[in-house]
Amino acid sequence: MEKKVSFECDYIKGAHPKILERLIETNFEALPGYGFDRYSDSAKEKIRAALGAPEADVEFLVGGTQTNVIVISTMLRDWEGVIAAESGHISVHESGAIEFTGHKVIELPAEDGKLKADDVRKYVEIFRADATHEHMVFPGMVYISYPTEPGTLYSKSELEALADVCREFEMPLYIDGARLGYGLMSDAADVTIEDIARIADVLYIGGTKVGALCGEAVVFTKGNKPEHFMTSVKKRGGLLAKGRLLGVQFDTLFTDGLYFEISRHAIEMASRVKEIIKEKGWEFYMDSPTNQQLILMNDAEMEELGKTIAFDRWGIHEDGRTIVRLATSWSTTEADIEQLAKV
Amino acid sequence: MEKKVSFECDYIKGAHPKILERLIETNFEALPGYGFDRYSDSAKEKIRAALGAPEADVEFLVGGTQTNVIVISTMLRDWEGVIAAESGHISVHESGAIEFTGHKVIELPAEDGKLKADDVRKYVEIFRADATHEHMVFPGMVYISYPTEPGTLYSKSELEALADVCREFEMPLYIDGARLGYGLMSDAADVTIEDIARIADVLYIGGTKVGALCGEAVVFTKGNKPEHFMTSVKKRGGLLAKGRLLGVQFDTLFTDGLYFEISRHAIEMASRVKEIIKEKGWEFYMDSPTNQQLILMNDAEMEELGKTIAFDRWGIHEDGRTIVRLATSWSTTEADIEQLAKV
Amino acid sequence: MEKKVSFECDYIKGAHPKILERLIETNFEALPGYGFDRYSDSAKEKIRAALGAPEADVEFLVGGTQTNVIVISTMLRDWEGVIAAESGHISVHESGAIEFTGHKVIELPAEDGKLKADDVRKYVEIFRADATHEHMVFPGMVYISYPTEPGTLYSKSELEALADVCREFEMPLYIDGARLGYGLMSDAADVTIEDIARIADVLYIGGTKVGALCGEAVVFTKGNKPEHFMTSVKKRGGLLAKGRLLGVQFDTLFTDGLYFEISRHAIEMASRVKEIIKEKGWEFYMDSPTNQQLILMNDAEMEELGKTIAFDRWGIHEDGRTIVRLATSWSTTEADIEQLAKV
Amino acid sequence: MEKKVSFECDYIKGAHPKILERLIETNFEALPGYGFDRYSDSAKEKIRAALGAPEADVEFLVGGTQTNVIVISTMLRDWEGVIAAESGHISVHESGAIEFTGHKVIELPAEDGKLKADDVRKYVEIFRADATHEHMVFPGMVYISYPTEPGTLYSKSELEALADVCREFEMPLYIDGARLGYGLMSDAADVTIEDIARIADVLYIGGTKVGALCGEAVVFTKGNKPEHFMTSVKKRGGLLAKGRLLGVQFDTLFTDGLYFEISRHAIEMASRVKEIIKEKGWEFYMDSPTNQQLILMNDAEMEELGKTIAFDRWGIHEDGRTIVRLATSWSTTEADIEQLAKV
Repeated sequence: MEKKVSFECDYIKGAHPKILERLIETNFEALPGYGFDRYSDSAKEKIRAALGAPEADVEFLVGGTQTNVIVISTMLRDWEGVIAAESGHISVHESGAIEFTGHKVIELPAEDGKLKADDVRKYVEIFRADATHEHMVFPGMVYISYPTEPGTLYSKSELEALADVCREFEMPLYIDGARLGYGLMSDAADVTIEDIARIADVLYIGGTKVGALCGEAVVFTKGNKPEHFMTSVKKRGGLLAKGRLLGVQFDTLFTDGLYFEISRHAIEMASRVKEIIKEKGWEFYMDSPTNQQLILMNDAEMEELGKTIAFDRWGIHEDGRTIVRLATSWSTTEADIEQLAKV
Repeated sequence: MEKKVSFECDYIKGAHPKILERLIETNFEALPGYGFDRYSDSAKEKIRAALGAPEADVEFLVGGTQTNVIVISTMLRDWEGVIAAESGHISVHESGAIEFTGHKVIELPAEDGKLKADDVRKYVEIFRADATHEHMVFPGMVYISYPTEPGTLYSKSELEALADVCREFEMPLYIDGARLGYGLMSDAADVTIEDIARIADVLYIGGTKVGALCGEAVVFTKGNKPEHFMTSVKKRGGLLAKGRLLGVQFDTLFTDGLYFEISRHAIEMASRVKEIIKEKGWEFYMDSPTNQQLILMNDAEMEELGKTIAFDRWGIHEDGRTIVRLATSWSTTEADIEQLAKV
Repeated sequence: MEKKVSFECDYIKGAHPKILERLIETNFEALPGYGFDRYSDSAKEKIRAALGAPEADVEFLVGGTQTNVIVISTMLRDWEGVIAAESGHISVHESGAIEFTGHKVIELPAEDGKLKADDVRKYVEIFRADATHEHMVFPGMVYISYPTEPGTLYSKSELEALADVCREFEMPLYIDGARLGYGLMSDAADVTIEDIARIADVLYIGGTKVGALCGEAVVFTKGNKPEHFMTSVKKRGGLLAKGRLLGVQFDTLFTDGLYFEISRHAIEMASRVKEIIKEKGWEFYMDSPTNQQLILMNDAEMEELGKTIAFDRWGIHEDGRTIVRLATSWSTTEADIEQLAKV
Repeated sequence: MEKKVSFECDYIKGAHPKILERLIETNFEALPGYGFDRYSDSAKEKIRAALGAPEADVEFLVGGTQTNVIVISTMLRDWEGVIAAESGHISVHESGAIEFTGHKVIELPAEDGKLKADDVRKYVEIFRADATHEHMVFPGMVYISYPTEPGTLYSKSELEALADVCREFEMPLYIDGARLGYGLMSDAADVTIEDIARIADVLYIGGTKVGALCGEAVVFTKGNKPEHFMTSVKKRGGLLAKGRLLGVQFDTLFTDGLYFEISRHAIEMASRVKEIIKEKGWEFYMDSPTNQQLILMNDAEMEELGKTIAFDRWGIHEDGRTIVRLATSWSTTEADIEQLAKV
């Protein structure tokens, strides 16, 4: 595999060199554990500033599944579940981690990977009108991904419509930003990170897929962090002893706009990939303005592509063809793109 | 409410008089607790005989939700979830009780309340073909209701097709028989209870809705009761101290065919209800050959009906009308029917 | 076994005849399910009156384990556990049902089955002083049994001391009254049921062991029932369809003081058992003023006793002898006592 | 704090420089995620070789709590709990994470932090002899720490006695080796890592406290990794996308004996600390042959010590004094020791 150029996913390389550099520079400082170090403090401050949310609570966790589990299960009440698109990550690809904490994922139809405000409203209204709803799971939160799993983007008005429904029915709106940077830096994005912070009640800013070795920054945008959150994190196996590992990384990512800069790079590389796809005449499965391009290929095409390019088999299309994912990231190079063009 | 005649549901009255009689006759016998009494033994033996399943393990539990929770969560393995129709009871009306035990309900489309074997097969095949399926919930069991929630019935060939898929993919087939008698005694049923026992890997025979004060009989038809089941039942809060309460009731229900006789009565009453519906020109929501009739009514119609009849608001139709349920049961009388005819 | 006289436990017989009588009388009334029937309402009202707690919330559940699970897991917050005596029922004999809901039972030493207020205070003070306590389970509730598992009784001052600690540290005090009547009617009791209601934040009045077929009445004495309790009950598999079964039973038990009258009977029978034990020269394991007498016997003594008497092997003493339990109940008769005297 | 010399714990510094070096060297290799990279493979092979256990299954997880949760909850069966010392980490300092997965920690008395084989045997024998044990949590695993939480060591014969009990009663023996190196490299250790691998059924080799940024290596020593372990890990939020982070670290730690070399260094530094404690006349709370020294100090002594030394308040002694922990690690320097000597 090492000889191929990899467009498999956005977590195939290590970390952005500046992160490794900072880990080395800070390595021999004696720092308190569990996130009480000064780099975590600094990173939180920088994130609050970047989001224009001075009252926000910021916490660092190790990975995406863990973050989804912890945010959802500490914010839901006993009788509640979380609404998500049927194609949402927590509906499909978390091995039942949400349910493991005792809460149902209420799956609603999605279009282009997006949950629609009207569908949420209709669901909640029907739920409330149902005389037997005490026998059902109460909708207690709405989960969306920005960008979505197939790489599409909600518009600002779509997000605000979702937020409106959430506020009306007193459900927090949670935005999974595993690839947040790759969404915000897209030419198609009509929201800023400040908009996201304003619209969401809680979100996470993905590090793992945007230049970090690991780590996600959870932001409770309205100062609404659950009580004794640290204990609840530990109870779910998520508390990292050397919290510095997360603090230093996010402090670096949010210094001088590095997070946005490397996200933008991935988007530029993705637009090059898109051009190549068009040139080759490959068929798009879905139009994506972010760092993941999904195309349809039969076995022969995949065999040919696979000779020099590592890619991901994202799913199987109804017509039997494979949905192939070509992902760029902060680490994609000009040379990678040239190699792809030569296929 | 007491002055109205009630067609609200099939659990509005107490128990069949023979059950109360037997509770009184056995009341002062000193009997061991937790299901080790001789009436429980006798009831188990009679159920095995009725099902033609001498090797079956039979256990008594108190209610339906509890039974679904215990059967599903003790039979699934850590990485597995249960497939159900999106309209299935465990998908909609168990307040997330299955998820509370840490397992996902995988909801597939339903037609007339029925899960289709082809949909199950396709789901499992796509799951297995998916290169990332280790990140997903493994389908580990199939749950269906006989009769279904809206009162329809699977045909023998539909059941066998489901069983075939289950056997092929090594998933147990679980039949929720909360209203089993009302299904089997329908003229539309083409299966016997022996067929059900042969087709299912585990099922429960509902008592609560068919003449008992409470109680459901779980049958592991192939001697496949999970190890240390009693401890797992207690761990889930389901172990009844005075197991005799369940034993005596099921012993009575399975003596001289009482369970089937009273089920048949309900079906006969339901056919009378059906005739009345037709006469009145009320619109059926769904055609049901069992004890529950679902009709569509607007507010005015409901107000009129509600003057003398107690009914259930089963749901809300897309067109805004209410789906009204008129249910018969072992306790429905001629007088009840006459009252309904007078509306 | 039927030929022996049974002192095995307090749930060997069915129900008090008045309960069966009322079940028959009310059997054909059409009543709403899930506890919304008028007998449940009436029973709640009578219990509030008996407890002198007009603001209390009363709910009926089926059994003891279920009640402990539901009360504890709906009242604890995510980061909390429940303090109990190491000999407490939830510490030892619930098959891990509390832990199954995700909460730790914090076991403290017990003396004569009783948790001491000083031990609770010391535990919580040390917990709070511990700089690492965010890594520990927060003590969030105190559980005691009245009477205790071996049959002893807390004095009023012991109970008030526990309540004081609980109030000081803002932890609800929960009293498991599986055998509440047998405690209150003991000559050694210096509290009334009004005292219990005042002292406890939540308690349950046991029905199963005091004359009912099944059923426990949970009392949130300060109107402190958890929000959407019914949904949380269903989520834990505890919601009974025919709630009337519980309503009618508790309505009968709390009419004309039946609950207390039959409890007193058991205590009188127990005092006769105690005299016999002394006469026979059998050795007490622990002095109990309630309906359970624990004595120490070797194998030969048990064999002799077992010829005419059914008893319970309650545990094994350090010296190898068995701790034998002789329990009386509402159903113990003069004839039973005479038989025991003849051993 | 930065100006003080820190003996607070063994995770105050980053990682061993060789680890950072290797992270940099491998940073731009495209590697598969989720632990399928070649460094993880290589690390597993080296660990198997170091342990003399060619058939062992090795898996990498991020942190200690997570590891305990995952190992215990995937190996226990539904009706089982895990036996641990009452002072064990999972009994006290995991915020109830084991219970969150639905399993009880059965706490037995400890001496010097050690669980005794005789106590385990007695517990299991009494459990089995108890006629009501189906109402209890079955002991299904034994958990110990090597070294223990206060820093003591089991002797080989103590370990083998525990293993004998475990084999006799068919319970896996699980060794929490968060500080495994600091135990094995102690002069007081009479076991090798091969002995540990032979004695334990499952263990984890701690990375976080022994030179890594994060990471623990779980070893199922008899090829007894639970089925679909990866899915169960993800379900518990423990699956790391960039598994390389763990693979590269453990590959480095197990190359040329680095893990043992840096562990030995910590032990040598600890013996210097011990000498200083004796010279100063400070009172030991417990004699520890490993990297953590526990001493008793009053407030005045702590204030004095705190002027130049950062330390941990490990607990509170019965006499009111604080139990102060002075820990060395792979990163402790001569200069640190000299500073401590000057207090």
